[in-house]
Amino acid sequence: MCLRRSCLETINVVIQPFGLRATGLKGQTLYELSRNAGIELTSVCGGLGRCGKCRVVVTGGHMNVTRPSETEQEHLSSDELSSGVRLACQVRAQGAIEMLVPRESAVARVRLQMEGIERKVKPLPLVKKYFIKLQRPTLGSLEPDLERLRRSLPEDNVRHCSLPLEILRLLPEVLRNANWNTTATVWNKREILDVEAGDMTNACYGLAVDIGTTKMVCYLVNLTDGKTVTVSSMVNPQVLYGDDVIARIAHALKGEKEKEELQERVVEGVNQLIAECCSKHGINARQIYEATMVGNTAMHHLLLGVSPRHLALSPYVPAVKGSLNLKAKELGLQVSPYANVYFLPVIAGFVGSDCVADILASRIFREEDICLLLDIGTNTEVVVGNKKRLLACSCASGPAFEGAHIKHGMKASSGAIESVQIDPETLEVRFRTIDDGEPRGLCGSGIVDIVAGMVRARIIDENGTIRRDADTARIRVSKNGVREFIVVQTGEEEAEDIVVTQEDIRKIQLAKAAIRTGISILMQEMNVELEQIGRVYMAGAFGSYVDPSSARMIGMIPSVPLSIVTSVGNAAGTGARMALVSSKARRTCERISRSVEYIELATHSNFRSTFAESLRFPYR
Amino acid sequence: MCLRRSCLETINVVIQPFGLRATGLKGQTLYELSRNAGIELTSVCGGLGRCGKCRVVVTGGHMNVTRPSETEQEHLSSDELSSGVRLACQVRAQGAIEMLVPRESAVARVRLQMEGIERKVKPLPLVKKYFIKLQRPTLGSLEPDLERLRRSLPEDNVRHCSLPLEILRLLPEVLRNANWNTTATVWNKREILDVEAGDMTNACYGLAVDIGTTKMVCYLVNLTDGKTVTVSSMVNPQVLYGDDVIARIAHALKGEKEKEELQERVVEGVNQLIAECCSKHGINARQIYEATMVGNTAMHHLLLGVSPRHLALSPYVPAVKGSLNLKAKELGLQVSPYANVYFLPVIAGFVGSDCVADILASRIFREEDICLLLDIGTNTEVVVGNKKRLLACSCASGPAFEGAHIKHGMKASSGAIESVQIDPETLEVRFRTIDDGEPRGLCGSGIVDIVAGMVRARIIDENGTIRRDADTARIRVSKNGVREFIVVQTGEEEAEDIVVTQEDIRKIQLAKAAIRTGISILMQEMNVELEQIGRVYMAGAFGSYVDPSSARMIGMIPSVPLSIVTSVGNAAGTGARMALVSSKARRTCERISRSVEYIELATHSNFRSTFAESLRFPYR
Repeated sequence: MCLRRSCLETINVVIQPFGLRATGLKGQTLYELSRNAGIELTSVCGGLGRCGKCRVVVTGGHMNVTRPSETEQEHLSSDELSSGVRLACQVRAQGAIEMLVPRESAVARVRLQMEGIERKVKPLPLVKKYFIKLQRPTLGSLEPDLERLRRSLPEDNVRHCSLPLEILRLLPEVLRNANWNTTATVWNKREILDVEAGDMTNACYGLAVDIGTTKMVCYLVNLTDGKTVTVSSMVNPQVLYGDDVIARIAHALKGEKEKEELQERVVEGVNQLIAECCSKHGINARQIYEATMVGNTAMHHLLLGVSPRHLALSPYVPAVKGSLNLKAKELGLQVSPYANVYFLPVIAGFVGSDCVADILASRIFREEDICLLLDIGTNTEVVVGNKKRLLACSCASGPAFEGAHIKHGMKASSGAIESVQIDPETLEVRFRTIDDGEPRGLCGSGIVDIVAGMVRARIIDENGTIRRDADTARIRVSKNGVREFIVVQTGEEEAEDIVVTQEDIRKIQLAKAAIRTGISILMQEMNVELEQIGRVYMAGAFGSYVDPSSARMIGMIPSVPLSIVTSVGNAAGTGARMALVSSKARRTCERISRSVEYIELATHSNFRSTFAESLRFPYR
Repeated sequence: MCLRRSCLETINVVIQPFGLRATGLKGQTLYELSRNAGIELTSVCGGLGRCGKCRVVVTGGHMNVTRPSETEQEHLSSDELSSGVRLACQVRAQGAIEMLVPRESAVARVRLQMEGIERKVKPLPLVKKYFIKLQRPTLGSLEPDLERLRRSLPEDNVRHCSLPLEILRLLPEVLRNANWNTTATVWNKREILDVEAGDMTNACYGLAVDIGTTKMVCYLVNLTDGKTVTVSSMVNPQVLYGDDVIARIAHALKGEKEKEELQERVVEGVNQLIAECCSKHGINARQIYEATMVGNTAMHHLLLGVSPRHLALSPYVPAVKGSLNLKAKELGLQVSPYANVYFLPVIAGFVGSDCVADILASRIFREEDICLLLDIGTNTEVVVGNKKRLLACSCASGPAFEGAHIKHGMKASSGAIESVQIDPETLEVRFRTIDDGEPRGLCGSGIVDIVAGMVRARIIDENGTIRRDADTARIRVSKNGVREFIVVQTGEEEAEDIVVTQEDIRKIQLAKAAIRTGISILMQEMNVELEQIGRVYMAGAFGSYVDPSSARMIGMIPSVPLSIVTSVGNAAGTGARMALVSSKARRTCERISRSVEYIELATHSNFRSTFAESLRFPYR
């Protein structure tokens, strides 16, 4: 009794400004305590003490928290430490405490790209519902239930289809209760997924799911006409375990339990989206008979519950590349238990099925012209080619374009500065924030605009250094001796200004160089010149919001005419929907996965020189 | 607290002669109490108060049991009642009691027919194991694990096979731990069932299971050469719920729980046999990759967990007739979880897959001659025909041949009189008992011998009546005024003699008439005469032990030359083994199930007249 108590002593926690009272266990970190209480703290590293983002202020019970760690002393100034600022992942509570979560540390609702280009696809769904009026058996007609049903199916080629044992168990009563008028749902002419009483042919739905590292989007599609009826999205609940793929993999590798935890979290999330879609459109989730899944290879493995270990170890091979067909039940998805879940094939360890879906949606696989396709994220997938040949690579562009590791960087949520114009003469700054909120920080597209504006105004040189001779009030040297560009001046304290520092510029420079290196190497491999590029497609949230002229100005993309640059939005989601409604599109996916040639950048002989070249800001 | 106690008061029970002390719940029947304590009582009706077999003697706590019911007063004499004899299913215990289970009421170990005719079958198993030495992936060879494995499979046509998610989850570590030397188990060129480290190609087993109403037999077969390596058998644990199919169905229809209980019991039983086979032969059950199942339609439905309701209701149609392929996991079988379980197809509501297996094993489907196949049991399946046409029917022969409803009838267990010769002149009786034990009663083959001997000696007339003028000491009239033939005279009390009564003869007469009616109607339908029958096959335990000349003497089978009568033993088991080792045999099963014409006897226009005719004992 006594032993137990000392092991599992509970403590009281108050979390402000939410006024939340919760209990936790003695010895837990403030990061864990707030997560358990339902407050997600910003974190890039997933609570590993690396990113310094999970700042909280201990406002009560100072005697009950552990003393500042070395990590905290590194990340926090002594002023901050003395005013109670702490890194939540570093502090363990030994008794009752009260903490304040500053606005920037709470995960805000992120703007998610849900719309993708619309592609007209002839619906060729694999799921088909048949309404059948059966003859009742008599002593003169002794055909058994299943054979009676099969024989009455209107198409010859579906008459040998199998039936899950659970449905066979229901069959006799369903048929008799329905007075022998029944609807059979058949998948791929191969398996009866369900039998229902009466005519239910109109209720036939599918689900296309795009699992991004940051966001998840779920499209509910009517399989009878191929139209999307509703969409729901949310932040991938795995962000609790780290913002990027590497942090997730690191968590999964801690042990079997952690791997399962990641799988369960994402499945729970998808189930939440399913419930949302069904309630919005007023349908029964059991009438969802098929789903397609796209995601990068790590998300793909984690959703499957397959260890991502070897994605993180050289030579970085996935467990499987080809498409997979699973039962919803196996995955734990709350739709028809026998719904087929089609995982689009991947291309390589770092080029996932989202890239296959991008290629499918952009249709570059059937273009005459050489196309360039970019899906920009923490890992950026680059594809170059046309209907004859396609090359793909993955660039470690890092999370800078998602606002991470940038001093005033933030996700694309309310109050983020998303678009900036700098007058090259006066250096006057005009900006727009998401939701027109008070400016809180800079999201990816905003930072790129600023760096592009600084290049255009020649405030930074070819090598990315803020010119010392740029004599303007917008540029100053911070207390720490770092040169910075003031984006928003509050007029009050310097610390409250929103700035872009020299270090931020370096991070953007590295990120854009990574992408540009990929583009250049693929172009070399493909043996194509700049002028030969007929089309540039930018996919993904960042790709949709970034100003192509800014992207070109900083050299992220080559200096192509802007007229050939197209934003294709969430092309991965579009591709997933295409594969959902059309078996032909699935065959195309298989072909794409098999035929796209993966180029490994890290071991490429030109990598170093191309990367060095790509770091430069292009001056014309 | 008080309420609970009164509801669920426990009571103490002592069960003799086992010296077993157990607790039960107040209000339970003695039948339930002993079953829960692990003592199975003989019962034909499954505790419904119909068969009068579950006799016990209350030896202590007389005040704690309910008073004799009407059913008991019907089945028990007043002498028996006054000496404490009761029907266990009728008596409820209200407090502590002691009871004695007489020898004849405890379920004895029944002689089970396990051997069947041996048929040479070319092994064409669906499961194949491949040992593969894979190349380790490198930066120059980035093929993912599953694709690497698939590509290395030595046969082209297996390279697209799928893999269960659980095995995919294991794959990366198995390959790396095995230093890339692995054994893949492939089913039907379609699915990888398992991956193991090292060369495991020799460990490839299958299981053929014959689920009879009374017995279950499990054959462990080496799939590499098709040879049976060991056999185990047991009484079907469902006998706890009644001895015959009707009692089982009645139990299953009580509710979902009861249906599941029957399913679980039989699965547990099969698992016990699997464990026994594996331990006898020293193999790991995970290396059993395929199983085949045969049984009558009720056993088939109950094993699947499909309600047998409509088998018992006109027009008696099964839920499914065709073969089924399920995963071991779905059924709960403790072998490789992804092992395929092949349920042989059935023919009709009362003609199950055991009959398909009989036909397969007897090979009558390819005979030129007209054959007659009998599988005698509570329901007797009759098949007539040859390679051109086969007709089948089911005869409600009842449990008399299994010793039920016969005054001194018993199952074919130790001490049962199994073979009897009556001297037609002296009426001297010579007999043999199973295990040469003290004679305890009569099993089916013994009774048939006796009735045949009585016919031969003309003690009973054409109509089955024991002649009043048969003046012999072997025949007497019992206290109840029933004429009976004394088989074993103890010399002591009359009640201890083993006899065959006039009523017993009537039951045998009804049973043999049922079978003979089936044979005759099929012969009429087939338009064949007695002389055209070229072969008679008798299958099943009773069919193996019954003396064909006795069976012919009582008119169970037509008067064919004995030289054409062959006993084929447990042909259902042989058929199940053939289907296990050969995909070709499975295709034959499908063809048999589709082509055999089922003849419904009950509605046949000649049924009444043929049955009346068949009741007679043939005098030449």
